[in-house]
Amino acid sequence: MNETKIITKEKPALKSPVLVVGLPGIGNVGRMSVGYLVHELKAKKFAELYSPYFFHFVMLNEEVVHVLRNEFYFYRGKEKDVVFLIGDCQAYDPKGNYEVAGKILDYAKELGCREVVTIGGFASGKPLQAENGKNSDAKKSRVIGATSDAKVSKDYEKFGIDFKIAGEVGTIVGATGLLVGLSRLHGMKGLCLLGETAGFPIITDPNAAEAVLNILQKIIGTGANVSKLHGKVKEMHDLLRKMEDIQREALEQMKPKPKKPDDLRYIG
Amino acid sequence: MNETKIITKEKPALKSPVLVVGLPGIGNVGRMSVGYLVHELKAKKFAELYSPYFFHFVMLNEEVVHVLRNEFYFYRGKEKDVVFLIGDCQAYDPKGNYEVAGKILDYAKELGCREVVTIGGFASGKPLQAENGKNSDAKKSRVIGATSDAKVSKDYEKFGIDFKIAGEVGTIVGATGLLVGLSRLHGMKGLCLLGETAGFPIITDPNAAEAVLNILQKIIGTGANVSKLHGKVKEMHDLLRKMEDIQREALEQMKPKPKKPDDLRYIG
Amino acid sequence: MNETKIITKEKPALKSPVLVVGLPGIGNVGRMSVGYLVHELKAKKFAELYSPYFFHFVMLNEEVVHVLRNEFYFYRGKEKDVVFLIGDCQAYDPKGNYEVAGKILDYAKELGCREVVTIGGFASGKPLQAENGKNSDAKKSRVIGATSDAKVSKDYEKFGIDFKIAGEVGTIVGATGLLVGLSRLHGMKGLCLLGETAGFPIITDPNAAEAVLNILQKIIGTGANVSKLHGKVKEMHDLLRKMEDIQREALEQMKPKPKKPDDLRYIG
Amino acid sequence: MNETKIITKEKPALKSPVLVVGLPGIGNVGRMSVGYLVHELKAKKFAELYSPYFFHFVMLNEEVVHVLRNEFYFYRGKEKDVVFLIGDCQAYDPKGNYEVAGKILDYAKELGCREVVTIGGFASGKPLQAENGKNSDAKKSRVIGATSDAKVSKDYEKFGIDFKIAGEVGTIVGATGLLVGLSRLHGMKGLCLLGETAGFPIITDPNAAEAVLNILQKIIGTGANVSKLHGKVKEMHDLLRKMEDIQREALEQMKPKPKKPDDLRYIG
Repeated sequence: MNETKIITKEKPALKSPVLVVGLPGIGNVGRMSVGYLVHELKAKKFAELYSPYFFHFVMLNEEVVHVLRNEFYFYRGKEKDVVFLIGDCQAYDPKGNYEVAGKILDYAKELGCREVVTIGGFASGKPLQAENGKNSDAKKSRVIGATSDAKVSKDYEKFGIDFKIAGEVGTIVGATGLLVGLSRLHGMKGLCLLGETAGFPIITDPNAAEAVLNILQKIIGTGANVSKLHGKVKEMHDLLRKMEDIQREALEQMKPKPKKPDDLRYIG
Repeated sequence: MNETKIITKEKPALKSPVLVVGLPGIGNVGRMSVGYLVHELKAKKFAELYSPYFFHFVMLNEEVVHVLRNEFYFYRGKEKDVVFLIGDCQAYDPKGNYEVAGKILDYAKELGCREVVTIGGFASGKPLQAENGKNSDAKKSRVIGATSDAKVSKDYEKFGIDFKIAGEVGTIVGATGLLVGLSRLHGMKGLCLLGETAGFPIITDPNAAEAVLNILQKIIGTGANVSKLHGKVKEMHDLLRKMEDIQREALEQMKPKPKKPDDLRYIG
Repeated sequence: MNETKIITKEKPALKSPVLVVGLPGIGNVGRMSVGYLVHELKAKKFAELYSPYFFHFVMLNEEVVHVLRNEFYFYRGKEKDVVFLIGDCQAYDPKGNYEVAGKILDYAKELGCREVVTIGGFASGKPLQAENGKNSDAKKSRVIGATSDAKVSKDYEKFGIDFKIAGEVGTIVGATGLLVGLSRLHGMKGLCLLGETAGFPIITDPNAAEAVLNILQKIIGTGANVSKLHGKVKEMHDLLRKMEDIQREALEQMKPKPKKPDDLRYIG
Repeated sequence: MNETKIITKEKPALKSPVLVVGLPGIGNVGRMSVGYLVHELKAKKFAELYSPYFFHFVMLNEEVVHVLRNEFYFYRGKEKDVVFLIGDCQAYDPKGNYEVAGKILDYAKELGCREVVTIGGFASGKPLQAENGKNSDAKKSRVIGATSDAKVSKDYEKFGIDFKIAGEVGTIVGATGLLVGLSRLHGMKGLCLLGETAGFPIITDPNAAEAVLNILQKIIGTGANVSKLHGKVKEMHDLLRKMEDIQREALEQMKPKPKKPDDLRYIG
């Protein structure tokens, strides 16, 4: 396998589908919130994406070998259908991120998607207001937005997204930004929806996930109950942390070990 | 050469062959045990795999230049034939591991293989029981398994593989896991067979090799005598260690040397 | 996207166009001076270049997601037309630089260009004479040249470029040199025009930008007013610096974070 | 340019040509000796090799931009013709080395070559006997050989090459070994000819160059005068050292610079 590959079990016929993406990233906001939605809506898996730009290790789920992947699910909504993309990881380098993003957009277009919404986190560097914990309002994370085109922002204004702050923030690293930035070149419109989380070190943040979910559901017209989200975040926190540790460890193992003195002689 | 290439001397006609893979890795369990079997069964070499994702140095065997490679051997069994894959190295980066694994599985499928068994080590981090050395039972390494699919595990249960422990272990790095994880996408079934060895630093471990060989031979139906294994491990230990040192050294040499002050002026 | 891509809005018909390139680099001389010219001449954008060898992050311009890119503009001159190439970045590694340079030259040839002029900086390592600030002459930066061919240098001699010093200087890193060096293989002639700037650390240098602009305008026959250049450099300085910081930060983030002790056990 | 490219000015018709390769490496033995021979024999350049796996900087020769390259020359001998390959550099990573070596061998085969001789250095780690300087014999460097095949070694035995020592030496890094190791897969025979030089740090070594030249000339049947070699080595020493420094510096410049504290906020 020397290229990113999408393997489709059965391609669904969809009506005006929107692609919603939640991959691991800052505060795990995207992965937690979209993963929760997929589960609550009982969305159906129909394709898997594998890439030589994902790490070359497998995880063990019980006794089954799990190659790192992203997964496509669909959900039939009232007005429009939804394609969800969630997964274990993003590509590990810039070239891989471009290749994977390109494949995802090509595939989404084939499925009929003309709209891409990516979910991510936004590290403000300040302790979250939730830490104060005095009143319930303090728990509310801001949700900021950025779009593929100034005209597109107007379409989303009614959903209570803060487009003003985006200009103050510098940059979005990885698939969350790239998929929206490149959507324009694929003839789609795109929106990044970013929930504010605490600064480094990153802790999975249920408030940010809840805040983006509330807005996302308005956009895609779904009505999943978010009351179990906080419990779910707590439950998944350890797994996600372990996963992160494994990736870090794998990176360490790829590096050359300290050499020991030797009498080898080299020629060249 | 900008892609992994398999060069076939003469493609054998095989009956229901199983692919058995033993490449360098933790404790050299895979390489030692499968290499021993190839030698004892007098399996016949029929193809070589070269890759731009292997290191760019050659070894000298006597006065002959040896480019790093993997090698395919076949053995005609009573019930089913066996294709063995052994070699000098694995690919040095994630992208290379995916490319090489993909080429191996494509080739195995062409040969008629529908089953892949990879052999590796499993570093428990504990001193091996063998160190106690009181009774022969203490020498026995555990062999754990992981498969491409929960249903596949059932097929292998009768061979005394410990599938329970796999869930406790996090991850398998490199070809051993990737070949089994990707086998499902090639319409094959796969099994990782992992012998427990001591923790870091890694020492070639004859007990782990013997334990996996005993189970592997039951699976593939071969009857090689394993009595010479301990001697062979000792004999090959120094060569394998030297090989590891060379690779580490080569990695070091690829890095930029410390710069010396200079009056060079740069433009750009 | 696994290859550099140029997306053309509308391909202009041009008469004997010359390609003028100003990308970020030492002292930001190329980017500042060519960017200024594009703005002053109201050159018209007609194509964008995207590459998997650019960083995988996006910038936010107001609330719009901006994928890193290079941009092609054209300007209709009296004698000959000009194609300008400016942009956010250069490729982040050697292979990417070669790929991007090749795509640019192929495209320029398609547009009819037979001449390439790249603008860059040249860090002399000495404090700039401008620091003395006594007389206006002291502010003048030297402009040195290097060409694709000794015969080509003769064509440019009349413009007051210092070709003598080039031999003293070692090397030009990145697109500025590569585009000129490879232009010969594309049947074009090429010129690097390099303005002297202070040594490391690099500060955007309006004097160098002005000096190269004066010569460049003679070569391409344009007559833009350069009086607003110093103000513009000051205005853009902070943006460019921030951009550099973001890229450095992005590089830092790509590196594995320090691992924390863990009870993970590995198999392979 | 996203692949190694060979640009032929005019393909010569050659009779049983042998390919002789001398690229930069340990002690610069290959580059010095073959470069000297090309010059003395007035061999004629007929092709250039460029690669995205060479560094992305250009050198300035006087005022002309020089992209890093390898160059093919031919020389019409009495019995057989010779194709020489010399150049500025080798590829900077393993994948690049495999790609470049593959292109060279494909091209050599097209030219009719059935024999490849690569010249390199061999760092013994001991001070050279020449340092003793008592008698002229002490100045003589050993020349060791390694071949693509045990049978091939017999063909070269008569030339006074030491094939016995090769077994003691571990490995050959880069093109010198790879071209010979891969020659077998291209249906050619290959020989590495390695002159012993002092250990690290590497100093260009005229004795090693002279020793390999004496044997090489017997193999290819040329009769160039080697009396000017020592002077030439001294003359080129500074240039080669500067070139090495530039490459080291370029590598350093590719690394991310130390970041400065900043108030940037990141989202992803």
